[in-house]
Amino acid sequence: MDNKTIRNRLKDVREGLSGLKADCLILTRPANVTYATGFMGDDSWAVVLSKGIMLVTDSRYSEQAGQECGPGCKIIVRKEGMVKTVAGLLPKLRVRRIGVEKSTTIADFVNLKKELKGRVVPAGGIVETLRRKKDAHEIKTIIAAAQIAARAFKNVRRQIRTAMTENELAGIVDFEIRKLGGTSCFETIAAFGSNASRPHHKPTERKLGKNDTVLIDFGVRYNGYCCDITRCFAVGKKSNLYSRAYEALSQAQLAAIKLVKAGIEIKKVDAAARNVLKERGLPVYGHGTGHGLGLEVHELPVVSNKTEGKLQTGDVITIEPGVYIPGKLGMRLEDDILVTDDGYIVLSTGIPK
Amino acid sequence: MDNKTIRNRLKDVREGLSGLKADCLILTRPANVTYATGFMGDDSWAVVLSKGIMLVTDSRYSEQAGQECGPGCKIIVRKEGMVKTVAGLLPKLRVRRIGVEKSTTIADFVNLKKELKGRVVPAGGIVETLRRKKDAHEIKTIIAAAQIAARAFKNVRRQIRTAMTENELAGIVDFEIRKLGGTSCFETIAAFGSNASRPHHKPTERKLGKNDTVLIDFGVRYNGYCCDITRCFAVGKKSNLYSRAYEALSQAQLAAIKLVKAGIEIKKVDAAARNVLKERGLPVYGHGTGHGLGLEVHELPVVSNKTEGKLQTGDVITIEPGVYIPGKLGMRLEDDILVTDDGYIVLSTGIPK
Repeated sequence: MDNKTIRNRLKDVREGLSGLKADCLILTRPANVTYATGFMGDDSWAVVLSKGIMLVTDSRYSEQAGQECGPGCKIIVRKEGMVKTVAGLLPKLRVRRIGVEKSTTIADFVNLKKELKGRVVPAGGIVETLRRKKDAHEIKTIIAAAQIAARAFKNVRRQIRTAMTENELAGIVDFEIRKLGGTSCFETIAAFGSNASRPHHKPTERKLGKNDTVLIDFGVRYNGYCCDITRCFAVGKKSNLYSRAYEALSQAQLAAIKLVKAGIEIKKVDAAARNVLKERGLPVYGHGTGHGLGLEVHELPVVSNKTEGKLQTGDVITIEPGVYIPGKLGMRLEDDILVTDDGYIVLSTGIPK
Repeated sequence: MDNKTIRNRLKDVREGLSGLKADCLILTRPANVTYATGFMGDDSWAVVLSKGIMLVTDSRYSEQAGQECGPGCKIIVRKEGMVKTVAGLLPKLRVRRIGVEKSTTIADFVNLKKELKGRVVPAGGIVETLRRKKDAHEIKTIIAAAQIAARAFKNVRRQIRTAMTENELAGIVDFEIRKLGGTSCFETIAAFGSNASRPHHKPTERKLGKNDTVLIDFGVRYNGYCCDITRCFAVGKKSNLYSRAYEALSQAQLAAIKLVKAGIEIKKVDAAARNVLKERGLPVYGHGTGHGLGLEVHELPVVSNKTEGKLQTGDVITIEPGVYIPGKLGMRLEDDILVTDDGYIVLSTGIPK
């Protein structure tokens, strides 16, 4: 990552820290480490100092870290445990009060506290909050991920055939994504018929019937960034209920998307989709209407009827209402939307509904 | 999962708890939740009580939980946040002191403490330790995963051809695993030539040459359980260095495997592999020699030169020494080994080396 981006991000992190009166922040959540350093591997922590930043990794990742981190990031290849190494570095750096990310495990926190004699405080969601506002490079990368998804989906559609299994279809989705240079950023959901009434259905050996329905929920990670898309369609003849529900669902999704812009109450966006389904006499889904996405497939903001707060410029969110009637049908439509000052941009284009 | 297995496991968990003087344990780590309940979904916690167990999940998973948890497990479908729901349940159950898994995040722990007025203590690794000892059903499932790996690997070998990319190869590995009813339990590593000198190499667009080498590190999850395997081979002509290193590596792996049995110091197993490489004048790898595997692809015990303790009957571990010469070559051989009273059983058989 270029030095200017890192510098700007670190400046914001330090501002977030000032409320804690801390002069150092230990990042342990992989996506936050990536955000602050550019490093895309695992099992590494970052230490944000009042000047500069360090990545603490191990020998498996030293080569990769050298390639991915900017020159402004000091790379430490640890020879001992993570907590011991980080605790050993800090005294020399004259830090006084150390924030530790709240997503850290209790085990690591307790050990850090012991090693650093208590000058350690939990720090909540500083980087997660900063990650909401995507910059131009991040948005471009999410669009690139969504374009891979669009091409993969078209290639998948051509391979749909009677008697294939859900497992097979999920495998084809993953393979098509790979062939286009991406990877699946979560376990692909392929659900036939009423199996789709479980929003997190795991693919099975269920075979596709001659007159049947398909739900595919899949995500592409490309250069670290995710997209997340769901499409549903029928093969052969479809029931009247399916057609009616699908039409209502399309309208529900559209109603929510149309409200998206910076400054709108998130709850209003959530309610817009639910209201359409209610008006049409269909059951209202139990999950949220969407979620932020970026370095992680689920990040801030949560788009639900419990979320306090407003959408902000630079948020990238999914809008994904669903209709679930156990034993009968399940469907969900999901797209990825960039929030702008005065509206929205759909990033997941070119994927037929 | 059958009730008897759950009952036995919970008995052991409760014994582990007695040292903490706690009469309740909150499990938050997904694999531990699976171990105690049979539930294989995500985003759910389990609460172990002095009598019985509860799974706290959400509406997305209620159907799945009903199918996977035994009748001895009470399923709670939460309508509020996880911490709030769990904290709301406990007062009615008259628990006095509550253990919370150390792998829980600081954020959740702090909130639980607040809601439960401090009767909360961190509980370290109780279930992780129990998970070391695999029962017959678990071993059978790991063998089934390894058999899928063996068949997938053979199907992959037939598709190796000049000019294919690392990304393509990784995609083929994943696809073949899927077609056989498994899923990849970590991001498949496919590395050509000297790219394999990075133990955690991410597949790239690098094309396979006419005279080249291949490393594939892949894992299969089947019915919740993992196997983890690495194979290396040359296509076309190979260098003398490669042949010499491969022969030494095979011997190094064998030396470590041969020592495996219950009661041996883990360090000795680790040293056996390293010593062979040292004697042959080859660089010694920076990572551990292996790790436990089961519900997670990395679990206890760690097999490294820093591990205190001995192998135990029922441990399933990888043995995976490697030779890495940056710019020249990288190779690793990895198999999955069951520790028995008087020796070992290789579970990852039928995968040519």
